[in-house]
Amino acid sequence: MLSEEENELLTRVGPGTPMGNLMRQYWLPALLSSELPDPDCPPIRVRLLGEDLVAFRDTQGQVGLLGANCPHRGAPLFFGRNEERGLRCIYHGWKFDVSGRCVAMPNVPAESDYKEKVQAKTYACVDRNGIIWTYMGPLDPPPELPRLDFANLPPENRYFMKQYYECSWLQVLEGDFDPSHSSFLHASLEPPKAPRDPRPEQMGDVAREAVVRWDDRQPLVMTVNTDYGLLVGARREAGPDYYWRLNLFVMPFYAFVPTVIDNPLHCNAWVPVDDNNTLVLRMDYHLDRPFTDEELARLKSGIGSTGAPNTYLPPTTAPGGAWMPNLHRGNDYLVDREVQRTKGYSGIRGIWAQDKAVTEGMGPIIDRTQEHLGPSDVGVIQVRRLLMTATRALQEHGATPPGVTSWPATVHSTIVFLPNQLTWEEVADALISGRLKASQTS
Amino acid sequence: MLSEEENELLTRVGPGTPMGNLMRQYWLPALLSSELPDPDCPPIRVRLLGEDLVAFRDTQGQVGLLGANCPHRGAPLFFGRNEERGLRCIYHGWKFDVSGRCVAMPNVPAESDYKEKVQAKTYACVDRNGIIWTYMGPLDPPPELPRLDFANLPPENRYFMKQYYECSWLQVLEGDFDPSHSSFLHASLEPPKAPRDPRPEQMGDVAREAVVRWDDRQPLVMTVNTDYGLLVGARREAGPDYYWRLNLFVMPFYAFVPTVIDNPLHCNAWVPVDDNNTLVLRMDYHLDRPFTDEELARLKSGIGSTGAPNTYLPPTTAPGGAWMPNLHRGNDYLVDREVQRTKGYSGIRGIWAQDKAVTEGMGPIIDRTQEHLGPSDVGVIQVRRLLMTATRALQEHGATPPGVTSWPATVHSTIVFLPNQLTWEEVADALISGRLKASQTS
Amino acid sequence: MLSEEENELLTRVGPGTPMGNLMRQYWLPALLSSELPDPDCPPIRVRLLGEDLVAFRDTQGQVGLLGANCPHRGAPLFFGRNEERGLRCIYHGWKFDVSGRCVAMPNVPAESDYKEKVQAKTYACVDRNGIIWTYMGPLDPPPELPRLDFANLPPENRYFMKQYYECSWLQVLEGDFDPSHSSFLHASLEPPKAPRDPRPEQMGDVAREAVVRWDDRQPLVMTVNTDYGLLVGARREAGPDYYWRLNLFVMPFYAFVPTVIDNPLHCNAWVPVDDNNTLVLRMDYHLDRPFTDEELARLKSGIGSTGAPNTYLPPTTAPGGAWMPNLHRGNDYLVDREVQRTKGYSGIRGIWAQDKAVTEGMGPIIDRTQEHLGPSDVGVIQVRRLLMTATRALQEHGATPPGVTSWPATVHSTIVFLPNQLTWEEVADALISGRLKASQTS
Repeated sequence: MLSEEENELLTRVGPGTPMGNLMRQYWLPALLSSELPDPDCPPIRVRLLGEDLVAFRDTQGQVGLLGANCPHRGAPLFFGRNEERGLRCIYHGWKFDVSGRCVAMPNVPAESDYKEKVQAKTYACVDRNGIIWTYMGPLDPPPELPRLDFANLPPENRYFMKQYYECSWLQVLEGDFDPSHSSFLHASLEPPKAPRDPRPEQMGDVAREAVVRWDDRQPLVMTVNTDYGLLVGARREAGPDYYWRLNLFVMPFYAFVPTVIDNPLHCNAWVPVDDNNTLVLRMDYHLDRPFTDEELARLKSGIGSTGAPNTYLPPTTAPGGAWMPNLHRGNDYLVDREVQRTKGYSGIRGIWAQDKAVTEGMGPIIDRTQEHLGPSDVGVIQVRRLLMTATRALQEHGATPPGVTSWPATVHSTIVFLPNQLTWEEVADALISGRLKASQTS
Repeated sequence: MLSEEENELLTRVGPGTPMGNLMRQYWLPALLSSELPDPDCPPIRVRLLGEDLVAFRDTQGQVGLLGANCPHRGAPLFFGRNEERGLRCIYHGWKFDVSGRCVAMPNVPAESDYKEKVQAKTYACVDRNGIIWTYMGPLDPPPELPRLDFANLPPENRYFMKQYYECSWLQVLEGDFDPSHSSFLHASLEPPKAPRDPRPEQMGDVAREAVVRWDDRQPLVMTVNTDYGLLVGARREAGPDYYWRLNLFVMPFYAFVPTVIDNPLHCNAWVPVDDNNTLVLRMDYHLDRPFTDEELARLKSGIGSTGAPNTYLPPTTAPGGAWMPNLHRGNDYLVDREVQRTKGYSGIRGIWAQDKAVTEGMGPIIDRTQEHLGPSDVGVIQVRRLLMTATRALQEHGATPPGVTSWPATVHSTIVFLPNQLTWEEVADALISGRLKASQTS
Repeated sequence: MLSEEENELLTRVGPGTPMGNLMRQYWLPALLSSELPDPDCPPIRVRLLGEDLVAFRDTQGQVGLLGANCPHRGAPLFFGRNEERGLRCIYHGWKFDVSGRCVAMPNVPAESDYKEKVQAKTYACVDRNGIIWTYMGPLDPPPELPRLDFANLPPENRYFMKQYYECSWLQVLEGDFDPSHSSFLHASLEPPKAPRDPRPEQMGDVAREAVVRWDDRQPLVMTVNTDYGLLVGARREAGPDYYWRLNLFVMPFYAFVPTVIDNPLHCNAWVPVDDNNTLVLRMDYHLDRPFTDEELARLKSGIGSTGAPNTYLPPTTAPGGAWMPNLHRGNDYLVDREVQRTKGYSGIRGIWAQDKAVTEGMGPIIDRTQEHLGPSDVGVIQVRRLLMTATRALQEHGATPPGVTSWPATVHSTIVFLPNQLTWEEVADALISGRLKASQTS
């Protein structure tokens, strides 16, 4: 339970807010590179931390992120002509390069120096390995790009997609550090396809996990702070061993969450559109090998690691743009009560849609003064604490938040069966030090 | 004409408002029993007096009305699993019984007593004779259920339905105590089908009423206070007799309104969804006999006592849910100007749609500082006065409002032809004392 | 760049605002006569300067403009019966004539004088030469009707239509006094159909204009105040001559803008619906001759002087009513990026849609504290100055604004080639004095 003031502190991200300032300390994954496929392709609308922007890729492939409206008289740059190293407003032909400099002002006599005085609002962008990063913060030059594992992979090793959420970034992020919900929200009611082996520990890990995954519905949740965020471990009983799921929170909004042992690695970046809306960037990847054709086909069908087809409503100018899933608030995620009775705990098809239903159903920003946190919410509590501490430290004495200037060598989550004599401290240390590998099959 | 402060007092119904407090003194008809048809059927969304709720019927048929969001972390209980005597949140499996007690918390170790500390917001419900009543007030135990005539009938004697109104409960209620509007808004322009008898008083009452009903467009409107509300009489000239229509207002929002002599009895309960929206419960019933097959067929076709088919827009998650009529604000109630010119005074088909058009067209809450009440508005004025008096008496010295703890033996409205020497006092006394029977044919 | 206070002053038009008061000094073109085609035809909804109204044409052809809601209890007069010299509320049959007088109150005894005490909100209307004018101001009697040239023409000389804009009146008006934008927003990228003559000054004016029109993209913009508004001249290089386009701003919202030399004259009246919406009345006309059949066919196809088909979305009760164009904000004006690359500067089809895209894209009311006005914005600056001066003069010492009580003999705009030794003062004086004729071919 938070005070109203704490809830405001954590959820408001617009310009000038404490949390908005915190997020602006970081490079932010604003777009997929594929959203601006070619040099001089049409610009697209972006809304990020409550700011309306327009993104374009110039003739040389550089990406620019400008204020949505021309500094002249406010015409929308979305309709702009993207040509010869700049985005040109269609109203009077004023042209801006990726740095926001006005490089042409053709309705004004050439001898005028007025164009030197005009600067568009702009944010630095870097297009690297499938993601367009932007820096909206105060440092000049900006800090170095985050060295996160998904951010440094060749195309054949990664598959990225996006979804629009009609609620605050924080309440969806919290779900990723709340391990017990999976045994309910995402559970199946159907009997296992094969007869349950009486000694699953003698099976291979993949088969064993399929049997025991959600059996223990009271995982012990433990956390440990890291240099860059938080490690949240969920320990479930599994015969002679423990079944461990280790999730990583990386500041300010990354959730490294394992799915199942033989799946690709996975990370969710819960990027705030504004206080009430979120565009999650969902990343599946292998650190050390390309996807197989089969894996890729499954990912491209939209199933991915989220377990359900992800198709989108037709693109519109409305909230969500091209990223609003077909299962959404307006159709109750097509909940099927008969399925709920007989096949799946929620009656909603797809892990992502299940998460969407419960978090959007909390309202745009949940009132955290009314909640009742239980023992399973340790991860949620610690994530909030970390965010509040960093936000206040920045606000009160300008402290650079964790993960802005230093990055761990590798950051990943994992799933693993370990002998039950290992303590949480030993498990956490093994992961953080890199001795415990990612749960990826190779 | 009211002051702005009086208008606010009368129309705001959310938690903590004076009128909201008044309404919360009463048992409220929240749902039709048929909206929760079976034990363990899917829960439904309810919005009542500005509060978002979810209703479910448990395994033993008991109805629960809980806050819309799980007390744990706010997940929407609408998606909950209704199973084995409780509604279970799909997020973490927390389960609540109809009393709001947390009866299962499966993600927490069994030895924890945390679930004893968690209580969902809940309101007492009673499902009786077709209506699910709820009590949102301060008394514990609640007062007894209202002994209203429609509330104690076997299924074969009653037909209940609902409609969504996009405006304040009060302005639609007022229409029921404004007898003169019927001679206009609901009037036909077509000549009577049979030649008009020069001496209608020699016909039977049913035929006589069909001839004279709206002829006198200046009914004399008179009122008298009762123990539980207000009796509003409209006296129209009808040859040697008077044609009387006696409407009853019962606190806090019931309108007992006769339709025509040979129709079933009728009551409208104008239940506030919130300040700006209303879900009317329309009840047709016979006190002393079942509906005939013919009557029932007519009612089920949706015509009922409101005189026009009542079909609904497809159910949505939007305001109105399953109860938004096909004729609505967004399509101008399909007003037909040629029909208006030649056949019906309003050009809108159906008494209920005519009422809906004029009241919703006033805006969500009409500005009563701008109105010009005339002699025909005596009923409206007295209804407001009664409501204001009771609201202030509760607010200022905690007075229990009329109709909370005591009920008349019978409450009904009637239509009757009476010799014109009878005074209003005599007519009113005859009705209130029960000597004047309901206008139902039997 | 304006202060926030100045921007508020200029854009707020509701009752009691300084700009709202200024506009209420003038007769306003509220409707096309054709919107109320016949005596006793159905009434229509009007929203004007933030006030909700209903317009009707009575049995004798007189037009009334009443408050949208009946003064009795607020029922919507839009559904009213338009009959025998008055609009009758369908709720209780109260009838109002065009002067707002209650001429029938049939639910009240005839001997009552209550109807003498009831007066509907009403504004004086005059239906003249295709336009229904209304006066919402304080003078009684109102000033005389504006003697604007388009307002005194026979039907065969004029063609009027309307369009709905989802933004403030001022930012669309400004576009009409910003001559340089045409060389960009409205420009074609295609080569001229005929080979470009090396000496266009030896062609006729029509052909010459087609060649040189937007060639000079840095017109010199000059202004001069007139008795009734502002003359804005744009001078473009055109060989031995200058190519002049002279636009007139007439208080409070008229833009007399020439299109091309052989087109009809044109005026836009940017009539505020409210602060955030505008209904432009677009008028094409000849002062001295009827349209030819060919001209009329072109205008009726919707192309008109705005250069693109103007079709409308289906009428609804939503903003825009019957006047929302098919190309609109919700479909991004069907911008075609391939067309933008190869054929037209904007990629949007139609001059009016191009203007709509850039002005609506500024948001409902552009934040003028953020703009960067350049040398080409002299016209915009002067229009604002004139409006602010008049608004403050009225507010501070009740000064009657320009154009309320006196009108120039003729007001028109023009396009003309003139020898380049003529100064701006000479050109302006020639136009204002009437020596320089309208650019109409006859």
